[in-house]
Amino acid sequence: MTAFGDIPGRIDHAVLRPEATLDDVRRSCEEALKYGFRSVCVNPCRVAQAYSILGGRGPLVCSVAGFPLGSGPATPGEAGAAAAQGAGEVDAVLPIGLLKDGDAAGVLGLLREVISAAGVPVKVILETCLLTREEKVLACRLAVEVGAFCVKTSTGFGGGGATVEDVALMRRTVGPEVHVKASGGIRTPEALRAMLDAGASIIGTGSGVDILEKMRRPVG
Amino acid sequence: MTAFGDIPGRIDHAVLRPEATLDDVRRSCEEALKYGFRSVCVNPCRVAQAYSILGGRGPLVCSVAGFPLGSGPATPGEAGAAAAQGAGEVDAVLPIGLLKDGDAAGVLGLLREVISAAGVPVKVILETCLLTREEKVLACRLAVEVGAFCVKTSTGFGGGGATVEDVALMRRTVGPEVHVKASGGIRTPEALRAMLDAGASIIGTGSGVDILEKMRRPVG
Repeated sequence: MTAFGDIPGRIDHAVLRPEATLDDVRRSCEEALKYGFRSVCVNPCRVAQAYSILGGRGPLVCSVAGFPLGSGPATPGEAGAAAAQGAGEVDAVLPIGLLKDGDAAGVLGLLREVISAAGVPVKVILETCLLTREEKVLACRLAVEVGAFCVKTSTGFGGGGATVEDVALMRRTVGPEVHVKASGGIRTPEALRAMLDAGASIIGTGSGVDILEKMRRPVG
Repeated sequence: MTAFGDIPGRIDHAVLRPEATLDDVRRSCEEALKYGFRSVCVNPCRVAQAYSILGGRGPLVCSVAGFPLGSGPATPGEAGAAAAQGAGEVDAVLPIGLLKDGDAAGVLGLLREVISAAGVPVKVILETCLLTREEKVLACRLAVEVGAFCVKTSTGFGGGGATVEDVALMRRTVGPEVHVKASGGIRTPEALRAMLDAGASIIGTGSGVDILEKMRRPVG
């Protein structure tokens, strides 16, 4: 437990901007160590670097796959490569187009391949801003069916982020045993608390340091 | 030559939204056939479908790799897989983070792998909105050095699209023998003509039908 309760241990510290440099990754790793974040979430090309910088101390390296478009066939390979380079978790975007086609078997097949290739816990990203309510529920059910460790709302690149309503719907759908990660647009202590209250158990944000520093300050 | 001169033959007809369905892909293929577009540009999961729908008639299937974040290691594999499924061209995002790191050797190495794996003409996407002027020039030079068929401004997902200034800079840098593809935000006849005037030889847009229909209408 830190001065912030268990909040840092629920934060995946995201550094996913395509223009992020090695210096940015290094700084994010140092912040994750300092604040006790649960992971540093990086693009595939940064996994080996982040793993080397962290050197097994504290935070996991979390990578992404099929990110952010969920466009398919390369996702299992990306997940496996990230795990081989030291990623302890992989956040994989579900094949959004196949879900929209109504091809549940195709979605299941790809997610099974991703989980098998990864060999580490996989979070399934729904990209909720692009889905109908029925598609969100179906996506959660398919993720649970394939044994996903977590369902995650958003990539942060899809035009919309986590909402309280979506997090609550996902929590109701997956039940208490599967993690729900709220991500996309969470930049204030109030937004973070609203997501936890709605049922999120993991928070993805690039603003974790700013949020914690604001929580530290006495009000008024 | 059609009623529109050679303009349709310069348009890559893009259907890259992650939520695009098989029906959307089918409609785009039919539009490409009807209007004589040079290609239909699809996500990796749609290459085999588009290839089957087009059945070798007219437009190429163009796929994307490392798209849209340029995040690296999976890009050559994606390019090769797309070509194996029927893509006649691959638009690959350069590793933006490595370019920002000043790692020209890393950028060259990855682009060489992509071109080798693809075995079909490769367009190198710069994502100009994220680059400085010097980085744009360097990226063009590296793309020419590895034998890219074309340099392309934008993914359309990076927060900014093609500008007249960037297209002119890219044309000046690569010379007359390499294609320059302007993409991102081109939605009117005026924008399309401005890009051609600035030196673009290929236009990437999802609005090609709308643009051509507007060009067909007499003014006033």
